[in-house]
Amino acid sequence: MKLFHKLGIHTLFFSSKDKRLASSIKMITGRKPLNLSLYRLALTPAGLSEESHQGFRISNERLEFLGDAILGAVIAEHLFKKFPFRDEGFLTETRSKLVNRETLNSIGIKIGLKDTLELVIDSRQFTGNKSLYGDILEAFLGAIYLDRGYQFSKKLILSRILIHMDLEGMITTVSNYKSKIIEWAQKENKTVEYKVIQINGNQRFKEFVVELHVDEESISSGKGPTKKKAEQDASKYACEKLGLLN
Amino acid sequence: MKLFHKLGIHTLFFSSKDKRLASSIKMITGRKPLNLSLYRLALTPAGLSEESHQGFRISNERLEFLGDAILGAVIAEHLFKKFPFRDEGFLTETRSKLVNRETLNSIGIKIGLKDTLELVIDSRQFTGNKSLYGDILEAFLGAIYLDRGYQFSKKLILSRILIHMDLEGMITTVSNYKSKIIEWAQKENKTVEYKVIQINGNQRFKEFVVELHVDEESISSGKGPTKKKAEQDASKYACEKLGLLN
Repeated sequence: MKLFHKLGIHTLFFSSKDKRLASSIKMITGRKPLNLSLYRLALTPAGLSEESHQGFRISNERLEFLGDAILGAVIAEHLFKKFPFRDEGFLTETRSKLVNRETLNSIGIKIGLKDTLELVIDSRQFTGNKSLYGDILEAFLGAIYLDRGYQFSKKLILSRILIHMDLEGMITTVSNYKSKIIEWAQKENKTVEYKVIQINGNQRFKEFVVELHVDEESISSGKGPTKKKAEQDASKYACEKLGLLN
Repeated sequence: MKLFHKLGIHTLFFSSKDKRLASSIKMITGRKPLNLSLYRLALTPAGLSEESHQGFRISNERLEFLGDAILGAVIAEHLFKKFPFRDEGFLTETRSKLVNRETLNSIGIKIGLKDTLELVIDSRQFTGNKSLYGDILEAFLGAIYLDRGYQFSKKLILSRILIHMDLEGMITTVSNYKSKIIEWAQKENKTVEYKVIQINGNQRFKEFVVELHVDEESISSGKGPTKKKAEQDASKYACEKLGLLN
């Protein structure tokens, strides 16, 4: 079957609709799909899926889960290598900003998934949710991974997805939680104090536990190997609690 | 340099300490390390790291970020293939249960990272945090990935890490959020009601928005392509809010 695919013999049996779909996919990935059904599944949003005999709903959501993981790994390596002097907090946060729903959605449209979806469904009859093309993009990456392997997916993500992500712009907005809290407190006219309440470990290894007090009331705590990191950690939780992250 | 590594010539310059470390790593991965310094970095917990000239703290945390992503991708594919009829919610939750801190920590010890760490540091002088070996395991996977690539890491994770994860046992505990809420409500003697407050979309695509009311007060909302999924979604948020997830 694999040889069959490699020689392209399976394409002889493609309907004209399949052929159009296959060339649309080639436009996106640069290579003909080996297993077209994977891509067709990636182009099946949950809202459009039909129930199979066993009551199992077949949609692209499982592929989305897989694609999200592959995308996460590739972006992780890219950031790891691009920023050799930044800590893991920066890397984690930059990645989550890069792969957020809105960004993925607009990239999905840019690389042509909207047009490709229209080859499969009658989109006039279909209103997807807001992140429809982002979800499809992730599912599509899952399909590509299963169809062509990790190296191929990685190259594709780096050359055709990442270029649409405004990495430089994002970095400047990656937040300093502590400064967010302090800014907020100034605006709200509240006092802020970070209190070290515990130091674990010994001379060589330390773990600081810090409590963040707003108007003399503890609102969060955090920990880390340095006081600064513990303060950031506590501030992060406080930002979440106070809804300052949007 | 790569050829140098492949021929093993670099090992001629290893100190006896390096040689012990290299064979300890070979015991874990099955192959001699090509770039020993990556593994040495993986064995540098944040609490033990020293500041470099530029004030940059060198520790295994960046590698941990990378290893976590690689582990996530490999486990995602494994679950995707092992459970062809389970939905993405199940896959997501099973993965997060598999790669939790405690599990990783005990696996880290089981595969020999404790002994390996002792070759690098004097552990009597060092008390790490609770998930020390789990963190090292992830960093170690990051080092293996950079040293040997994705396929090698994948095989290693499937053959030497996953066998220590009690997948079957975990599946039975993967939770049904709605039943958790109902159980809780019965115990606390509260009434629970799920109200569909909105249906978006058209005949072909639907998105349900459901509100969960406890004692006639809305405590969370959720959405999904079916009523059942929207209810699960709302229940999940409620579980988090009520602290029922531990």
